Amino acid sequence: QVLSERFGRGSKTVDLQLEAQIEILRDTQHKYENVLRLAHELTRHFSLVVQTQRTLGDTFADLSQKSPELQEEFGYNAETQRLLCKNGETLLSAINFFVSSVNTLVNKTMEDTLLTIKQYESARIEYDAYRTDLEEMSLAQRDAAMMVKIETAQQNFQVHKEKYEQLRANVSIKLKFLEENKVKVMHKQLLLFHNAVSAYFAGNQQQLEQTLKQFNINLKTPGTDKPSWLEEP
Amino acid sequence: QVLSERFGRGSKTVDLQLEAQIEILRDTQHKYENVLRLAHELTRHFSLVVQTQRTLGDTFADLSQKSPELQEEFGYNAETQRLLCKNGETLLSAINFFVSSVNTLVNKTMEDTLLTIKQYESARIEYDAYRTDLEEMSLAQRDAAMMVKIETAQQNFQVHKEKYEQLRANVSIKLKFLEENKVKVMHKQLLLFHNAVSAYFAGNQQQLEQTLKQFNINLKTPGTDKPSWLEEP
Repeated sequence: QVLSERFGRGSKTVDLQLEAQIEILRDTQHKYENVLRLAHELTRHFSLVVQTQRTLGDTFADLSQKSPELQEEFGYNAETQRLLCKNGETLLSAINFFVSSVNTLVNKTMEDTLLTIKQYESARIEYDAYRTDLEEMSLAQRDAAMMVKIETAQQNFQVHKEKYEQLRANVSIKLKFLEENKVKVMHKQLLLFHNAVSAYFAGNQQQLEQTLKQFNINLKTPGTDKPSWLEEP
Repeated sequence: QVLSERFGRGSKTVDLQLEAQIEILRDTQHKYENVLRLAHELTRHFSLVVQTQRTLGDTFADLSQKSPELQEEFGYNAETQRLLCKNGETLLSAINFFVSSVNTLVNKTMEDTLLTIKQYESARIEYDAYRTDLEEMSLAQRDAAMMVKIETAQQNFQVHKEKYEQLRANVSIKLKFLEENKVKVMHKQLLLFHNAVSAYFAGNQQQLEQTLKQFNINLKTPGTDKPSWLEEP
């Protein structure tokens, strides 16, 4: 069936609306994977910035103690770097939470629907193959042997038609729920991302911590790499 | 002379106050080199953050256009990332200026004084050698031949004593000017560093740009890697 379709022979059952929705899902997954990759890159570079700020803060503090002539200048720089370092850790927790939630959406939830779509697509090919068989037989001479063959083909056609329609319905329902889930998760995560980033870069420590509380994010204990608060979206 | 000093024989001329100042200079150079290394590391990591923010801003903007259901959420995130990117470029200019000025102080100004110190140290060794020669001769029997030798030794001693004292005076003056220059440069640079970092992390674009103006820093044109505003401190 795949071959005859590829060579332009044999007809293909197409649900245009469903195909369009599937196309959009694949495109969305691809785009969100890109966001995920960038957000991950951001945490990687940003955590190196925070690390450098911590060392710089300690170095300035040491120089402040040991340079009476520039005590004040080194002092306020030490203080600023240390505060930034603390807020930076909080922002990293927020971005990690964003990454983990979007990752679940893209690589678990979307992936599950795409698996059903693959099953639907092979069911469609099988169904079209049995349908074509039956159509060809009905054009042949009808002797007794042929009538038996047609009978069997009719049964096969019916079984695969039902399987195909069942999977088409499944895909349709999954796509609907996925769309709802996607909007819910992304609405929440994009809001969190924005609020955390804005609070951090406005130097608003209180608002930053409040944002994390609002999203039930526990602060990562410094030194542990694996976040313990992985939450399903 | 170096050998006899190492084996505990021969006496050594020591200017305790100057030695202490030299020791402090070497220590300061070492510490500032460390600050320089960290500030350089900070620009490296931070410019990667800014680069990622730029791409993330573009990606969010694209998603905002193509996702009617999440247009607003992607939209405000795109805006925030783009603003941060712009301010990030400004902060990078400030940190680059800091790095360039401290680099001149550490690797040109301090290095110049340390060169004079090395000349002073070898002049001290020569002077002590001629001094020891003369002292040993004055203990020997004084016949005519010895008197001629002592006369020559006396002259050598005098020449190297003057050279040593001249260089000691040079070092002393250079150390004094260096200390003044160091405090002036570092006071200015630490203030710039603090004000630029504070303004950036308080989301205060206006104050950030004002800080750069105050320190006569021209904004780096994006895309050119080499800053063109290298300024002597």
